[in-house]
Amino acid sequence: MILYILKDKSDFSTLKEKLNQNSASYKVLSLYGKNLVLAWPDQNVKSISDDSIEIKVEVKKPYILASNDWKKQPTIVNVKDVEIGGNKVVIAAGPCAVESEEQVLTTAKAVKRAGASLLRGGAYKPRTSPYSFQGLGDEGVKILRRVGDEVGLPIVTEIMDTRDSPIFKQYVDMIQIGARNAQNFSLLKEVGQLGKPVLLKRGMGNTVEEWLQAAEYILLEGNGNVVLCERGIRTFERSTRFTLDIGGMVAAKLMTHLPICADPSHPAGRRELVHSLALAAVAAGADMLLIEVHPTPEKALSDAEQQLTLESFEVLVNRIRDLTRALGRDV
Amino acid sequence: MILYILKDKSDFSTLKEKLNQNSASYKVLSLYGKNLVLAWPDQNVKSISDDSIEIKVEVKKPYILASNDWKKQPTIVNVKDVEIGGNKVVIAAGPCAVESEEQVLTTAKAVKRAGASLLRGGAYKPRTSPYSFQGLGDEGVKILRRVGDEVGLPIVTEIMDTRDSPIFKQYVDMIQIGARNAQNFSLLKEVGQLGKPVLLKRGMGNTVEEWLQAAEYILLEGNGNVVLCERGIRTFERSTRFTLDIGGMVAAKLMTHLPICADPSHPAGRRELVHSLALAAVAAGADMLLIEVHPTPEKALSDAEQQLTLESFEVLVNRIRDLTRALGRDV
Amino acid sequence: MILYILKDKSDFSTLKEKLNQNSASYKVLSLYGKNLVLAWPDQNVKSISDDSIEIKVEVKKPYILASNDWKKQPTIVNVKDVEIGGNKVVIAAGPCAVESEEQVLTTAKAVKRAGASLLRGGAYKPRTSPYSFQGLGDEGVKILRRVGDEVGLPIVTEIMDTRDSPIFKQYVDMIQIGARNAQNFSLLKEVGQLGKPVLLKRGMGNTVEEWLQAAEYILLEGNGNVVLCERGIRTFERSTRFTLDIGGMVAAKLMTHLPICADPSHPAGRRELVHSLALAAVAAGADMLLIEVHPTPEKALSDAEQQLTLESFEVLVNRIRDLTRALGRDV
Amino acid sequence: MILYILKDKSDFSTLKEKLNQNSASYKVLSLYGKNLVLAWPDQNVKSISDDSIEIKVEVKKPYILASNDWKKQPTIVNVKDVEIGGNKVVIAAGPCAVESEEQVLTTAKAVKRAGASLLRGGAYKPRTSPYSFQGLGDEGVKILRRVGDEVGLPIVTEIMDTRDSPIFKQYVDMIQIGARNAQNFSLLKEVGQLGKPVLLKRGMGNTVEEWLQAAEYILLEGNGNVVLCERGIRTFERSTRFTLDIGGMVAAKLMTHLPICADPSHPAGRRELVHSLALAAVAAGADMLLIEVHPTPEKALSDAEQQLTLESFEVLVNRIRDLTRALGRDV
Repeated sequence: MILYILKDKSDFSTLKEKLNQNSASYKVLSLYGKNLVLAWPDQNVKSISDDSIEIKVEVKKPYILASNDWKKQPTIVNVKDVEIGGNKVVIAAGPCAVESEEQVLTTAKAVKRAGASLLRGGAYKPRTSPYSFQGLGDEGVKILRRVGDEVGLPIVTEIMDTRDSPIFKQYVDMIQIGARNAQNFSLLKEVGQLGKPVLLKRGMGNTVEEWLQAAEYILLEGNGNVVLCERGIRTFERSTRFTLDIGGMVAAKLMTHLPICADPSHPAGRRELVHSLALAAVAAGADMLLIEVHPTPEKALSDAEQQLTLESFEVLVNRIRDLTRALGRDV
Repeated sequence: MILYILKDKSDFSTLKEKLNQNSASYKVLSLYGKNLVLAWPDQNVKSISDDSIEIKVEVKKPYILASNDWKKQPTIVNVKDVEIGGNKVVIAAGPCAVESEEQVLTTAKAVKRAGASLLRGGAYKPRTSPYSFQGLGDEGVKILRRVGDEVGLPIVTEIMDTRDSPIFKQYVDMIQIGARNAQNFSLLKEVGQLGKPVLLKRGMGNTVEEWLQAAEYILLEGNGNVVLCERGIRTFERSTRFTLDIGGMVAAKLMTHLPICADPSHPAGRRELVHSLALAAVAAGADMLLIEVHPTPEKALSDAEQQLTLESFEVLVNRIRDLTRALGRDV
Repeated sequence: MILYILKDKSDFSTLKEKLNQNSASYKVLSLYGKNLVLAWPDQNVKSISDDSIEIKVEVKKPYILASNDWKKQPTIVNVKDVEIGGNKVVIAAGPCAVESEEQVLTTAKAVKRAGASLLRGGAYKPRTSPYSFQGLGDEGVKILRRVGDEVGLPIVTEIMDTRDSPIFKQYVDMIQIGARNAQNFSLLKEVGQLGKPVLLKRGMGNTVEEWLQAAEYILLEGNGNVVLCERGIRTFERSTRFTLDIGGMVAAKLMTHLPICADPSHPAGRRELVHSLALAAVAAGADMLLIEVHPTPEKALSDAEQQLTLESFEVLVNRIRDLTRALGRDV
Repeated sequence: MILYILKDKSDFSTLKEKLNQNSASYKVLSLYGKNLVLAWPDQNVKSISDDSIEIKVEVKKPYILASNDWKKQPTIVNVKDVEIGGNKVVIAAGPCAVESEEQVLTTAKAVKRAGASLLRGGAYKPRTSPYSFQGLGDEGVKILRRVGDEVGLPIVTEIMDTRDSPIFKQYVDMIQIGARNAQNFSLLKEVGQLGKPVLLKRGMGNTVEEWLQAAEYILLEGNGNVVLCERGIRTFERSTRFTLDIGGMVAAKLMTHLPICADPSHPAGRRELVHSLALAAVAAGADMLLIEVHPTPEKALSDAEQQLTLESFEVLVNRIRDLTRALGRDV
């Protein structure tokens, strides 16, 4: 595969002609303000040159657009006025599941005051058991929207079904792809087409390379607003719910220009571990944290063990703030 | 959770009344010719008795309908005239991906002659990379249908998107849920509602318990025609593509009444290992095998390394036949 | 690394001279009746030829002597009159731990009658907890020896400490290296020097390649009597104690000339799974099985859950016999 | 199991009598300045009371002495004048393998100047391949000793064989048990008896619970000077050499009173990842770091890819110093 980065405003009709003459396949897309052409197979494309081409990159990796081989500068993903991938470490916080407007409102006010920049909450819930609380669905999305607007926080929530894309288009600021849909390629293409910022979790059984290939599905639809989220992988260890792969997260940062988020809540599986995992992720270079917070965790309808109280979250944000300053960043 | 198995043709209006009086939640469904009521929470339901109840089962496991706590007899899933879960070991064979009508037809004739009872082939392909062949889609499904009818083999193929359910309803005999959608709960509910036989693969990062809970999603929609398929899990070992979890497959057989299939092709990742893994799975008690076969594997558009030739497949079926006879079964 | 297989009875003083002249390092050893010279680095050795050389093998793998690149014929390991690696599937059976002479004698008689060819039993026990029964030590080894002689079965038992090699030299027919010492390189070298047959378990966290490299440590001491034993690896799955890696075992068979054993007891972790795993391993091509059997498993001082009763073992051997015949082998 | 913590200077002859009268088994040991009695089985011991007993702890976990159920205060392990487990984060640094006196001396001077408090280096090397450099053995230990004395740094190096304990007793300040010997129980008992500080690595296939049980073997010999070292576990991920289990490390800290060390070099497997993993481990609460540093890493005889240069190590220590201050600690 060859990637051509075209000169701004260039006419690439002659390039297309040459590709056709060489029986090459190609795809044209626009990403991060650049016109790009992906062309293959290599032997048909290698020798082509054209005035419209600014840079030609021969990509050997199984992901191309997600790689920093062609885009050296880190990408900043904007969710309304929140910049993810810049100097500030962005914190998204909120309940595991949207249970009621009051619950979300209480949480949203508290996390904003403490320093969160995004409100998270699950409306459609992917639950291992069909007997577990399945979420409020559309109504949950609308609660998040109302609370987000009232409190002044952009909202991030998970999509589970391609058929739900209209409501996500209308109401949601950042669309989360959960770990269980990390290789649901139909859904990845769909959120690619929606164009909204995407928070893409790594599947619990997926390698870093597969995670970047999942991002590639979204980017290939012309949507470059992807934040990668490490949330723990499946290993033999049982003292934690999942194994937060800090090393994989750091390796990913060396491979991609996309910002990286860490979710310390799911791998922890219990409150006592969340602070340490959050601090570790920030020290390792995470650009964003996704943290579950609930006004009364012990009464939560899901993930009761791992959600932080409002007080504990505030303490954590203060610790993160101290840490980021030592690292030359901020919250 | 309490499961009531109702007497045949019983009137359960008084049971419903009692459940309502006790502020219990309940779900009524019909499965395997039995009327069932699932009721909870336990403390509200425990003391209820009613004439309509044949058996009352207190279930402690996170899956209920999939468990053999209430249904001791193995379930037989019928795909047209093929019985899965009986004394015969059923073999489904065919190419990884549908590439052309000719390719499928050649394969179908050969695998039928060798002893296969079902024709498999991928029309919608879940590919790790967006740059890999994505399958022929609807056209692939129709090719399978035509070839299946011509050769006289029921067809099994994978669904990837809830929006595709109409075409699966119209054309497909057995619907496969792939490993990457093993916890795509929207899709599980959708195939539950379609009512057709389902071949449910275990996710590469899922425990046996989670696999049974995925089946539970389908059963809870009233569709009991589920065959579980072990296809290898993610481990640190690199000499195989995935680790075929024969132990997990055997453990599952002790937990459920559903038939169990093994896919030796994907964990093998290369042809030389497929025979041994297939034989091991049958010796361990698999009711069905799903095997990739291609007339010219080296030219295949996907999984070229692991597809068997037509000749090798025939040799394998003969070896399986010998083995099953030693075990008191047949192909 | 270059491996020279020398002609029988050849004088290789000129080869040594040439190696010295080229500043090459080399190691001379005798294995399987062949004189071998390993020489490196490649660039210093490549061009050397000599009359003493029968075959010159350039080895690219990280294991050499264990590889079937140079030795195509399967190795048969003789433990007294028992042949491991031939047409018969050899069964070693006995209690997890030696508890008393009576216990071992009862078991030995029964397993011999049922069809076992080797008596196993632990005298030095590697226990995860220091509070668990640590074995009878030297006295356990002597009990095994006396019972083995009385019943007429060669014995296999585990070594844990290099300092115990004298007692193993004197009393034991086949020395087991357990999973927890699979990369205890001092111990591997020690049993290499003892020259007795070795049953080398794969470590629970080791790849197939590392397992073969562990065997290489033994072979490099001139001891070619190594049987590799797959006993389950650590994965996220919890329905079994370990994941028996049948695929890894089959892959190993394609890489080495050494015989391969499977231990179905430890991965099973509970009796109900042992039969199926044993049958699967044999169907996949195992040359030997190592099975825990106890006259009264529920009273066993270790691994009570997974040891078979004498009756159940007999049933299993009969099933294995049927299976091996279908495969053209025997017990 | 019941643990009695005895009053200082108390006479416990009557307690022993009572235990004997109740047919209880028991073990007496002295640890952290306390006389302890472990007694079992519970039903024989439960009702015993005696004047010599200060506190009686019923332990339900599979590790007792390593647990913080009975010893709430964190243990500080002293290696000469270096305190591990206190407010300072202790850094041990040095080459993977001792190659020459000059190499070690150059490294030792540089790492001391940068802020390291301990000198590490391998003399006996556990190498996966018998063809890899196996270390200088005794001579390596003596080099470390001479350099340590010259530069003024206590030394830590790995033991591989129980037969080497005399040289470790004579020359070494802190004895490392490597990952491959993490369940070599003979070796654990041996270093327990030596009484010197032990750096106990977690096995690559071991759970946190098994790691604490390995420590228990050492403590049960009366040696309480154990530092636990997380160095990465085996998972399916391939972008790093091992997966540094920060969550497991944090979970361990909640379970034990022993100090915890992290080794960022081995899980990284390549230099570029070491800084981030080291910072993450410190942020998560590590009391010590073990870091591979080499004057000319590209020429190293082992682990060439992952050793830091002297310059890079200095940069890292400065970053760690900034981080620890933000956390209220120091280097």
